[in-house]
Amino acid sequence: MSEIRRDPITNRWIITLDDKYFNPSSVSSIPVDLPQVDKNCPFCPGNDSKINKVIFELKDKNDGWKIKVIPNNRPYLMVEKQLKKQGRGIFDVISGTGANEVIIENPLHNIDIDKLDIQSISDIIKTYINRTLDLKKDIRFEYIFIFRNRGPDAGGTLFHPYSQLIALPVIPKRISEETESSLKYFELKNRCIFCDIIDNELMNNERVVKETENYVVITPFASRVAFELCILPKFHSSHFYNLNELQISELSNILKDSIYRLNKSLNNPSYNYMIHTAPVKSEEIPYYHWHIEIMPRIKRTEGFEWGTGFYINPTLPEDVAEYLRKI
Amino acid sequence: MSEIRRDPITNRWIITLDDKYFNPSSVSSIPVDLPQVDKNCPFCPGNDSKINKVIFELKDKNDGWKIKVIPNNRPYLMVEKQLKKQGRGIFDVISGTGANEVIIENPLHNIDIDKLDIQSISDIIKTYINRTLDLKKDIRFEYIFIFRNRGPDAGGTLFHPYSQLIALPVIPKRISEETESSLKYFELKNRCIFCDIIDNELMNNERVVKETENYVVITPFASRVAFELCILPKFHSSHFYNLNELQISELSNILKDSIYRLNKSLNNPSYNYMIHTAPVKSEEIPYYHWHIEIMPRIKRTEGFEWGTGFYINPTLPEDVAEYLRKI
Repeated sequence: MSEIRRDPITNRWIITLDDKYFNPSSVSSIPVDLPQVDKNCPFCPGNDSKINKVIFELKDKNDGWKIKVIPNNRPYLMVEKQLKKQGRGIFDVISGTGANEVIIENPLHNIDIDKLDIQSISDIIKTYINRTLDLKKDIRFEYIFIFRNRGPDAGGTLFHPYSQLIALPVIPKRISEETESSLKYFELKNRCIFCDIIDNELMNNERVVKETENYVVITPFASRVAFELCILPKFHSSHFYNLNELQISELSNILKDSIYRLNKSLNNPSYNYMIHTAPVKSEEIPYYHWHIEIMPRIKRTEGFEWGTGFYINPTLPEDVAEYLRKI
Repeated sequence: MSEIRRDPITNRWIITLDDKYFNPSSVSSIPVDLPQVDKNCPFCPGNDSKINKVIFELKDKNDGWKIKVIPNNRPYLMVEKQLKKQGRGIFDVISGTGANEVIIENPLHNIDIDKLDIQSISDIIKTYINRTLDLKKDIRFEYIFIFRNRGPDAGGTLFHPYSQLIALPVIPKRISEETESSLKYFELKNRCIFCDIIDNELMNNERVVKETENYVVITPFASRVAFELCILPKFHSSHFYNLNELQISELSNILKDSIYRLNKSLNNPSYNYMIHTAPVKSEEIPYYHWHIEIMPRIKRTEGFEWGTGFYINPTLPEDVAEYLRKI
């Protein structure tokens, strides 16, 4: 039994199969026996001398560091570069102006988010917010994107837990697709499409993995891969960086819970998470709703998916949600 | 030196770096010592009994087969399924109606396109066209997509050379993005954007890998990965399946040449190629131009790329074109 589903926000179609033979543990794993300190890891304490510049540091009570933000050692984009937009024949080019920061999440080499205490996760989220608020002052930046590559199959170059931030002089295509499409829905219904999806999901409950007072975790109706997750705030908010202390703490909890379920069910897979939030230059908007996409990397995309944007998902999101709820 | 480039057709932004340290051979390879016949390969002659149904077969002069088209043994979509479009709450669903065919390109297990003679490649292209013309009669289908997954990193499940065809009851997002955007350009300029790009590329020559009487191969201005190639007909044509005998033969030549250069420079990498053509229900249209995208799979996309649609390409397309021209 297969069916073709449309994602209501991006208008992407995907094919879902109903694979009863799917074996959630049959994927490559991140080693569980990583050392607490790896003497070859540039992010581990003791190797700090290799780090040229520290943008931000959160100290622990013994004056060691808890979180450290550094520039990417091979930056894609540079803050120092003057912003220049130009036509080149029929093409459009912008100078490589931007920021590319690495958030080293904790000093220990082997502690992923599912093993951190809530306070430490809150500190990471606060660091995301503080760096965003700082970079947002630079009027050259249109978008600030925060993401995490965990494991080699997700583009993670080190096992030491870290996230990244990229500040961009343009709004990325996937984000403008989301804002444009949700604006159209708002013009039609005068409601936020994300709020409507949340209501729908909570009403029928089929794809809900976890619900707390202020958040819900779902397996999206048109998931691109099996075990794709989406964390959404139940309250309407377009900008991730407007979270208050309590909302941050509750988000830390649900993020930890989501990563735990993923690690448990897929045996520590490579994964990405990505924070989708409204462009920094807009004020709070009624039609866009920030959210976190979590994407385990358990298969390679193939020609069909690359060429069409049509994803093939072997497992029904409803079955995955049921599986994950039991963990 | 990095810069941000916009793809004029999809409006996707990409970051190009100017990586002088790029080593074209440092990627995983398809083995060169594959046997001519693999007794475990379901596509090799002698194992034909495992194939339940043959949709099309091209015979050689000794009454053996040269090309064989079969249904995918694990079809994503089924022709037999009645087409049904429905709303489900706030979501849209279509029945899994479609076709999913496998084109076994030749009987030999170890002969990729760069080692086939031109006549045999022409036969493959004619098979693509014949299958398209046949499936196009089914009015339920809006789009017919032909692609090739070569090697495990590209989603290829067998080394035996094969292509695939998928007939769909909807137009995929990436295709409608291309047709909508090129229509906008046509409304503005009254010219095909692809024709304009071809003129531009032939004029400055920086990104041209190969030119023949009727075709040109370029490294796209906003290539998503290093060594991405695009084959374009120099004559305007919206539908791939309208090629005549001579145009097919010349395309076979340039396809073989492109794959040869890719295999030679990247040491037999995994790759995909994908034929982008106008939707089957439209007549010849002045604003869209069929083309073939060739995408070597030499790195994994990471969270930034997944989340934003912003690709990071370590090497300038101009440098890649220069490198490939010399092969």
